[in-house]
Amino acid sequence: MTEPRLFVDHDLQAEQPLTLTGNHHHYLAKVLRLGAGATVKLFNGRDGEWRAVIDHMTRQGVEMILRERLRPQAVEPDLWLLFAPIKGKRVDTIAEKAGELGVSRIMPVITQRTVVSRVNVDRLRANAREAAEQCERLTLPEVMEPLDLGAAIASWPAGRVLLLADERASATPIAEALADLARESARPAAVLIGPEGGFAEDEKRLVRALPDCVPVSLGPRLLRADTAVFATLALWQAHLGDWRGGDAGWSQ
Amino acid sequence: MTEPRLFVDHDLQAEQPLTLTGNHHHYLAKVLRLGAGATVKLFNGRDGEWRAVIDHMTRQGVEMILRERLRPQAVEPDLWLLFAPIKGKRVDTIAEKAGELGVSRIMPVITQRTVVSRVNVDRLRANAREAAEQCERLTLPEVMEPLDLGAAIASWPAGRVLLLADERASATPIAEALADLARESARPAAVLIGPEGGFAEDEKRLVRALPDCVPVSLGPRLLRADTAVFATLALWQAHLGDWRGGDAGWSQ
Repeated sequence: MTEPRLFVDHDLQAEQPLTLTGNHHHYLAKVLRLGAGATVKLFNGRDGEWRAVIDHMTRQGVEMILRERLRPQAVEPDLWLLFAPIKGKRVDTIAEKAGELGVSRIMPVITQRTVVSRVNVDRLRANAREAAEQCERLTLPEVMEPLDLGAAIASWPAGRVLLLADERASATPIAEALADLARESARPAAVLIGPEGGFAEDEKRLVRALPDCVPVSLGPRLLRADTAVFATLALWQAHLGDWRGGDAGWSQ
Repeated sequence: MTEPRLFVDHDLQAEQPLTLTGNHHHYLAKVLRLGAGATVKLFNGRDGEWRAVIDHMTRQGVEMILRERLRPQAVEPDLWLLFAPIKGKRVDTIAEKAGELGVSRIMPVITQRTVVSRVNVDRLRANAREAAEQCERLTLPEVMEPLDLGAAIASWPAGRVLLLADERASATPIAEALADLARESARPAAVLIGPEGGFAEDEKRLVRALPDCVPVSLGPRLLRADTAVFATLALWQAHLGDWRGGDAGWSQ
């Protein structure tokens, strides 16, 4: 069986005892039915990845001892995802794939044509967290409360590239735009994907007026919003993130 | 309302009458409740895209007349997807995204660690078809019956690049590998994604021994199989397919 891997809030230091309670307790004791001597990988977003061994179980929790640090904490790509919430299961998959594709911050943005009125931020967090545990990253993506697109643009941090996946517009093909960015000095980045109905014209003008906005084209087919998210994130990681060779942020 | 768009088997020629029956009849008459005068886009993978107008409904079908050709048939990228079937909804999403991301042939391949015993090819076809209708491509991906990986490799067509997404192996970073291929003359291609448990060692040797095999790395995180599919297809289209500018196979 694969060693379980969990995100925890605890500080992680050598030989430190710690007690996992609540959902973690339930998962290790009742779902996986682990007992004394079983090992688990832990990370907290600050102290790298550790192997911990179960010392004993109590009715309140799992008593564990940190055994060895497997990987040090490392700098990860600084990539935000701004997306207009969509209906049903597709939004869960977006949070999951954002986790796997190394997004550092997930920002639901409300646009004029966004048809979803409520965003379940806790569910986004749970999906992103599960993906982070499974894909072996050392952090969780930060999931923000929903924000109006206008407010997000009004407070845009200077210097952060905003890749605008512009459905069917005559933008630069994405591989070309990313190759251009790769020749400049490294900058933090964000990907913005609109709702299935597209952005309103004044929203497009607002976003394109940002000095850091880079409109990109994703080819001739009309992509669903989730597909555009996966494609743009993967392409950014391949060209500017830690999918490049050599200077990847992570040790293997 | 968006004009409905349907794949049909009929020949499509100017002013030709045609009758849509069965599922198409049900969808137009009962689901969308369309009547005489409503228009529908049709494509058949051979004759481009047409606008048809509903002449009248009968109890047996929808009588339509082809009004105008909207786009001529065009050459599309020659990109196969070979993937080890996975459980549940994820396989539906793979077929859908293959449709959107311009895959010409979908090939489920059975590997040693494939845990799914039955592949519902009809369901793959339905998902790929719906995606093709929605994303405005002019063809359907061809969905093949499942095949053993060994048989697929034994009959591999000479010259067709096989991109092997090699989980965590020390392969060339994908953007670099694709940039190298883009400098050579154009070749048909395929993407091969293994099962969640990875390929067996002898399978890897078999695939890597193909002269046309190009192993690529998708970065330091352990991706789910579906994520690896989406990422690799998007990157191929961006570097070698119709997401590039200018010479794209499709007119807009």
